[in-house]
Amino acid sequence: MNDKILALLRSSAAHVSGEDISRQLGISRSAIWKHMQELRQQGYDIVAVPHLGYQLASSPDLLVPQEISFDLNTKVVGKKIFHYDTVDSTMDIAMRLGMDGSPEGTVVFAESQQKGRGRLGRTWSSPKNKGIYFSLILKPNILPLESPKLTLLIAIAICEAIRKMTKLDCLIKWPNDLLINNNKICGILTEMNAEADRIKCVVVGVGINVNTSSSALLPKATSLKEELGERVSRTELAKELLRSIDKEYATFLKEGFHPFIKRWLKLSATSGHRVRVHSHNEYIEGEALDIDEDGGLLIRRDSGFIEKITAGDVVKIR
Amino acid sequence: MNDKILALLRSSAAHVSGEDISRQLGISRSAIWKHMQELRQQGYDIVAVPHLGYQLASSPDLLVPQEISFDLNTKVVGKKIFHYDTVDSTMDIAMRLGMDGSPEGTVVFAESQQKGRGRLGRTWSSPKNKGIYFSLILKPNILPLESPKLTLLIAIAICEAIRKMTKLDCLIKWPNDLLINNNKICGILTEMNAEADRIKCVVVGVGINVNTSSSALLPKATSLKEELGERVSRTELAKELLRSIDKEYATFLKEGFHPFIKRWLKLSATSGHRVRVHSHNEYIEGEALDIDEDGGLLIRRDSGFIEKITAGDVVKIR
Repeated sequence: MNDKILALLRSSAAHVSGEDISRQLGISRSAIWKHMQELRQQGYDIVAVPHLGYQLASSPDLLVPQEISFDLNTKVVGKKIFHYDTVDSTMDIAMRLGMDGSPEGTVVFAESQQKGRGRLGRTWSSPKNKGIYFSLILKPNILPLESPKLTLLIAIAICEAIRKMTKLDCLIKWPNDLLINNNKICGILTEMNAEADRIKCVVVGVGINVNTSSSALLPKATSLKEELGERVSRTELAKELLRSIDKEYATFLKEGFHPFIKRWLKLSATSGHRVRVHSHNEYIEGEALDIDEDGGLLIRRDSGFIEKITAGDVVKIR
Repeated sequence: MNDKILALLRSSAAHVSGEDISRQLGISRSAIWKHMQELRQQGYDIVAVPHLGYQLASSPDLLVPQEISFDLNTKVVGKKIFHYDTVDSTMDIAMRLGMDGSPEGTVVFAESQQKGRGRLGRTWSSPKNKGIYFSLILKPNILPLESPKLTLLIAIAICEAIRKMTKLDCLIKWPNDLLINNNKICGILTEMNAEADRIKCVVVGVGINVNTSSSALLPKATSLKEELGERVSRTELAKELLRSIDKEYATFLKEGFHPFIKRWLKLSATSGHRVRVHSHNEYIEGEALDIDEDGGLLIRRDSGFIEKITAGDVVKIR
């Protein structure tokens, strides 16, 4: 019912009378009053003017379903949205939901995570109401060994959404980080539940430092607020992210990974640079070139030999 | 306490007096009586002789922890055992346990499954108290694309355990079935929870038709009882399976997959035969040769070209 009241308030530029709400939603005036109190507690600034009615002055910048779903217009991503205040990790919740039959496109948002994680069990700092932390359930008909492609195409989708909203020069560091001015702004984590020859469920986790202040950031990390000098609407950015992922995922299902290779190269933070890669307990140094059809990173060693890296950590040397 | 009483009864060939039990376990005579009643309800035949005490005449053929753990002597596999009467699928329970931090080697047994499953979402029939249905949690430090090796080495372990206990000519049909006289006796299902470059948890499910009568078997399936003409102790076979898997898994962690290739070939139902493989929506026909270092099946086509199959269904043509 709160959702319906919000929709009514949003549909009108002027005040909406209690009488109108009562008539259109079939609830009593005292019920309306109760719902308005609830919405105010959630952070909605609802002004009540005697004889005129209610007006929505502002919405809270929370990643709640009624905010994200409003005017989202995606085909798959975000068709079902869960929102939590504090969780251990949105990854675990999403994986459970996915295994229990939640449909592809389900998104789990949290305002903060107590055990937010990155690749290889690393920690992802998730201070409350500052960043965007979500996990997305996908169920593509691909082989487990194709899962790295998903990480890369979602990196492209997020990178482009951030560029579009902020005009900042966001770049991708293979395989799963986004950088602004060489500092980490976003991490992506892909986990799957799979048989040897069939993915049953993929969960893609995304953490973005949005309004995080410098004191709360880890070394070599930045936030959109730090880079822009002003706060960014988390709700609007989250919606833009879901729209962008929705679009790129549809392209991937239809046309495969090929269309993403050139686009990735344009956004790559390392291409053409000398890098050191730590991969499977060995270090490889050389010039970062391109990615291949599998999403592997191609490195030209000093010997001229071109090596394909399927997993690892990349450090730009110069 | 029931476990301790069972251990006492088992440690003695003769009767154990209530007084001895009371003294050694520090419980009253009426408490002993209560525990004996519980054990009898679980299917233990405990004889009470006045003035002599209690004797264990027989144990039920249930896959309960106290039966399986007794004299198991494994290093990893079965160090923690869960037992359920009826579940949807032991796979789901084990995957949850594994993700929630249950240690490697944890085994989940069920007397029956309502949604027992095989590869690619197929059904595995699991009639109550007739077969052995379990899922094993492993956490090997290998890449997701190496998971097929686990399926193959566990197939070898189970095949050899069945041969040892029954003297039946059990063979492996790549990748995950065991056959006796060309009919299915066992299916193996490997599922994993993984990042792109790290397995977090593998669950290996095993279903064996042990004392299943022909009327309850699916077409092209058989049971040990049908093949032998007599019942097999599920408890003893389950223990033998866990011991065999424990041994082969330790070999794999120490020496890798290489030692298994020759052993697999000796147990293969298809090697040297003409087969048709259904793999990724295409059919491949030829002579089944060997498996390679990755656990892939090698097929020699009529053209002489040797093709490697990483996933699919194999049918022996002649």
